[in-house]
Amino acid sequence: MAFKFASRMDTVKASTIREILKLTEKPEVISFGGGMPAPELFPIEELKEVTLSVLDSAGQKALQYAPTDGYPPLREKIVERLNRLGIEGIDKNNILLTSGSQQGLDFSGKVFLDPGDVVICEKPSYLGAINAFKAYQCKFADIPMDDGGMIMEDLEKALMDNPRVKYIYVIPDFQNPTGKTWSVGRRKELVDMANRYDTIIIEDNPYYELRYEGEIPPAVKSFDTEGRVVFLGTFSKTFSPGLRMGWVCANEEILMKYNLIKQGSDLQVNTLTQMQLNTYIETYDFDARIEEIKKVYRHRRDLMVQMMKENFPEDVKIFVPEGGLFVWLEFPENVNTTQLMLKALEKNVAFVPGDPFYPNGGGENTCRFSFSNMPDEKIIEGIRRMGEVIKEM
Amino acid sequence: MAFKFASRMDTVKASTIREILKLTEKPEVISFGGGMPAPELFPIEELKEVTLSVLDSAGQKALQYAPTDGYPPLREKIVERLNRLGIEGIDKNNILLTSGSQQGLDFSGKVFLDPGDVVICEKPSYLGAINAFKAYQCKFADIPMDDGGMIMEDLEKALMDNPRVKYIYVIPDFQNPTGKTWSVGRRKELVDMANRYDTIIIEDNPYYELRYEGEIPPAVKSFDTEGRVVFLGTFSKTFSPGLRMGWVCANEEILMKYNLIKQGSDLQVNTLTQMQLNTYIETYDFDARIEEIKKVYRHRRDLMVQMMKENFPEDVKIFVPEGGLFVWLEFPENVNTTQLMLKALEKNVAFVPGDPFYPNGGGENTCRFSFSNMPDEKIIEGIRRMGEVIKEM
Repeated sequence: MAFKFASRMDTVKASTIREILKLTEKPEVISFGGGMPAPELFPIEELKEVTLSVLDSAGQKALQYAPTDGYPPLREKIVERLNRLGIEGIDKNNILLTSGSQQGLDFSGKVFLDPGDVVICEKPSYLGAINAFKAYQCKFADIPMDDGGMIMEDLEKALMDNPRVKYIYVIPDFQNPTGKTWSVGRRKELVDMANRYDTIIIEDNPYYELRYEGEIPPAVKSFDTEGRVVFLGTFSKTFSPGLRMGWVCANEEILMKYNLIKQGSDLQVNTLTQMQLNTYIETYDFDARIEEIKKVYRHRRDLMVQMMKENFPEDVKIFVPEGGLFVWLEFPENVNTTQLMLKALEKNVAFVPGDPFYPNGGGENTCRFSFSNMPDEKIIEGIRRMGEVIKEM
Repeated sequence: MAFKFASRMDTVKASTIREILKLTEKPEVISFGGGMPAPELFPIEELKEVTLSVLDSAGQKALQYAPTDGYPPLREKIVERLNRLGIEGIDKNNILLTSGSQQGLDFSGKVFLDPGDVVICEKPSYLGAINAFKAYQCKFADIPMDDGGMIMEDLEKALMDNPRVKYIYVIPDFQNPTGKTWSVGRRKELVDMANRYDTIIIEDNPYYELRYEGEIPPAVKSFDTEGRVVFLGTFSKTFSPGLRMGWVCANEEILMKYNLIKQGSDLQVNTLTQMQLNTYIETYDFDARIEEIKKVYRHRRDLMVQMMKENFPEDVKIFVPEGGLFVWLEFPENVNTTQLMLKALEKNVAFVPGDPFYPNGGGENTCRFSFSNMPDEKIIEGIRRMGEVIKEM
């Protein structure tokens, strides 16, 4: 049967990462693939307590429909946390709860993009964002980065060359996939340039709380003077990804558009989950929990990097992030990491090749390793096997 | 600031129902507005047990990312329930879990609609579906109904007149807003016609289990011979709407497109919720629960209809549904129900005017009353006040 789908379906393809996740469901696979949190750190006992408390005190409310924007006390708590990032002058009316920050990405496409519009993004950029935006049939202008963020001359050139730019999409802290962090100066320059060229910035910041050294820099949105920075956040990395709870923080005019899109897309996020999270933050020390996660991940990052240095040839460039979940590798130009991955899978090791993160192609010699999800012995054994695979190639 | 939004945002407007829901948050308002389940029937104690059981036995899994299609045991249980509707030859690979059936509606637009495409729908049709589809910049051909469903001659004419029809959207059981139910013969004719004109049917069926008299008829999809009927279901009316759990049942080629869209939209539904629902159905008698709901709603429907007959003038036409949540009213042509609603709100009574359910205009003399959410004394008092408002106009 030849069904007639929308033309967007020609560009919407399966995510390599999701496909790899399927392959790696076998327990014998050591997976450095998806950006999965460590499940042994999930607050299971606390969530049991919290659920009983919510259902006992407000069960009828927790299972009923609720307004689209989300549970006010939880939105207020998000505001407090964003204040710490230097984002001032906001209140709960600047927050919309979403089904993970992936939904914030999808809505950003839906609110802003007509077919043929241009999204400026980092080169490389987050695969899930690229796929979400592609569904709205946009084009991408990808901007090279140095250790401080996008190279501003290239950004300005892209803004001049592309009158149909709708927004600049950035992941300023421990970027997915490269792990790079924007300098404070570059953040300010980015906002200045968005003001000058009258465009929007989508700041996707799922990892900033997972910083293993140094101070958390102010958010890009903290420099926003004209309400043109949309900040996307999530509880996926600090609480639980399975609960699908993220948020959009934006000026009210823009947020109303996201709200309308949320109404048509799925009405609201899970009411019970909103109340569970709110009660969790009221009852427990969320910051202490994040410190615990950081301790584990910092150790895993260090172990993975050490093992890579010991087992990989010197011409493999290792990017060590200050936080987040990912180590990024650049191989010599002649290495194809998709072929490398197939060889690695034969030895039951998985990672993500870099090229799907390049919206306009390239990066075949790059790849991303996640260190958050595997215990020490699997990191040691997995990277040892990877060393063998690389040497065999 | 004049931000440049996507052109779709010109047509995406606030839902009247959601706006009314905000007005009716005041406890003194007797609301017959939204299709809200009765919260006193929510399985709160059971959900507490189920949550502890899931978190104790598989907490790490319940809080982690999970595959997009959804938890296999729950999808298998959905298959069993659909088998009872006469939908045969399906297995769990024909099921994708969604964030309520509202998300199934949104995805139907996203998978099938290009700007300018035509959706055929009932006249009137569900406002939430109209708004979801509008975001994909479609046009509507709305088909008049009699007591057995769409008038088939009008449907065929619309199919002939509109080469860009992508699908026919129907709510065959206790239609929202009219409460009407398609006859079995008409369901079969509908599928035959979709086959003949090579189009898709979106069968939105959130209420079929809430039937207060007679037998549940076979689903439209039960007559599907070519894999062209997409069935949207939900646990919102039988378990809890706040948990946002629905599903799409479709042939595998079509479902793969919905799956790709789900990946880009929000990755997956809440993992914990999937497992909670699965364990609930395994542990408790779900059908007995539905019988309890039906008993309460049947009584409320009967009470509301009786009160309307006693308090409303004879020229107000009352459509009594065999199930579902809504009574539909047709006033004489010169009555405007939006004005009526504003008068009713002065007396703290809310309902939903009918005209937003007409995608191409009309229906200003119609309105929808929900009977599920209000206890006896409020139904009696609310309809009494409505009688006064009508007489005053």
